[in-house]
Amino acid sequence: MAKLALIVTSEKLDKLFPAVTLATTAAISGWEADMFFTFWGLLALKKGYEPSSVSEDYQEYQDMLAGAIDSGTMPGWREVLEQGRETGKIKIYACSTTLGLFGMKEDDLETFVDGVAGAATYLGMARDSDVSLFIS
Amino acid sequence: MAKLALIVTSEKLDKLFPAVTLATTAAISGWEADMFFTFWGLLALKKGYEPSSVSEDYQEYQDMLAGAIDSGTMPGWREVLEQGRETGKIKIYACSTTLGLFGMKEDDLETFVDGVAGAATYLGMARDSDVSLFIS
Amino acid sequence: MAKLALIVTSEKLDKLFPAVTLATTAAISGWEADMFFTFWGLLALKKGYEPSSVSEDYQEYQDMLAGAIDSGTMPGWREVLEQGRETGKIKIYACSTTLGLFGMKEDDLETFVDGVAGAATYLGMARDSDVSLFIS
Repeated sequence: MAKLALIVTSEKLDKLFPAVTLATTAAISGWEADMFFTFWGLLALKKGYEPSSVSEDYQEYQDMLAGAIDSGTMPGWREVLEQGRETGKIKIYACSTTLGLFGMKEDDLETFVDGVAGAATYLGMARDSDVSLFIS
Repeated sequence: MAKLALIVTSEKLDKLFPAVTLATTAAISGWEADMFFTFWGLLALKKGYEPSSVSEDYQEYQDMLAGAIDSGTMPGWREVLEQGRETGKIKIYACSTTLGLFGMKEDDLETFVDGVAGAATYLGMARDSDVSLFIS
Repeated sequence: MAKLALIVTSEKLDKLFPAVTLATTAAISGWEADMFFTFWGLLALKKGYEPSSVSEDYQEYQDMLAGAIDSGTMPGWREVLEQGRETGKIKIYACSTTLGLFGMKEDDLETFVDGVAGAATYLGMARDSDVSLFIS
């Protein structure tokens, strides 16, 4: 079975969308997909936190993107992720070191997080994958 | 034959340059190189659109880079890409979903675009490659 | 032996940290790790240059990160890199083309740089690796 490993270090919408789209597309195509959220990316996994903006570089398109989501033309990033997770093939990991940096605990994470792991664990996932990408 | 697969999500000059330099270097070295432009990266493929700035993070070097290109010290990103494409080994794909997001049609794309494809097609290219990179 | 190849195009702290953490974790786990610094990433290898800020997108966390490093809660990026380099398994390369762009010479580089190389050399390293990532 093919496998995708993503390391995600940003919670900007224009980074989360490609990340979850690739993971969900992979899962629907029969791949396994591991997503490792670290650094600023970890914020996307915090309960009650709502990533809401695109990168500074593309602020001019913020309204266009928000409009596409609000109008239903484009699904939200959580919907895309949820669709992929229904296949049972996507696993989501939170970086243990970053948890400490933000003073967060496992209980602060969304319930869809499958586990907390370190960089060594991520590297093992990446080595075992067919495609590994760094999304920042 | 070795193969490179790049997914490009930005049209800032400091992202396009590494992308086309890697693809062209690969092609000249006898590799095949697939480039999949998605999200903001798609803008670089729009007819008549001229990517002109570097990332917010490196605005201070904008003039230095523009000067190097204007004086001919450094080739423009299209020239680098054209050099690589002359080998016949670089293929350029535009993301179908992003076309819809921007309300663009195939006719709006530069003639050097080889095709329109979705994320599943990109994943297949990446799986078949020796090196796959996410350039954002 | 497993191998990691990183191409690093930014010298922002929130990009350098993941880069050196992955390389050092890999090296400590017995992997070889090649790091190729190009474009803005090359600045991190310049003698006397001190990368000091995070990306524009995450300025709000700048003080938190600086505080964690100053208080010793978190090691500096050079310390992390040094720890990895003590294993003898990390090699650091500066991009030859970017040296020219910045008007720099090999003598301007930190003594821990192992060599100057071009994109073709980087591609060979990436092809020979188990995991290759683009950190920008």
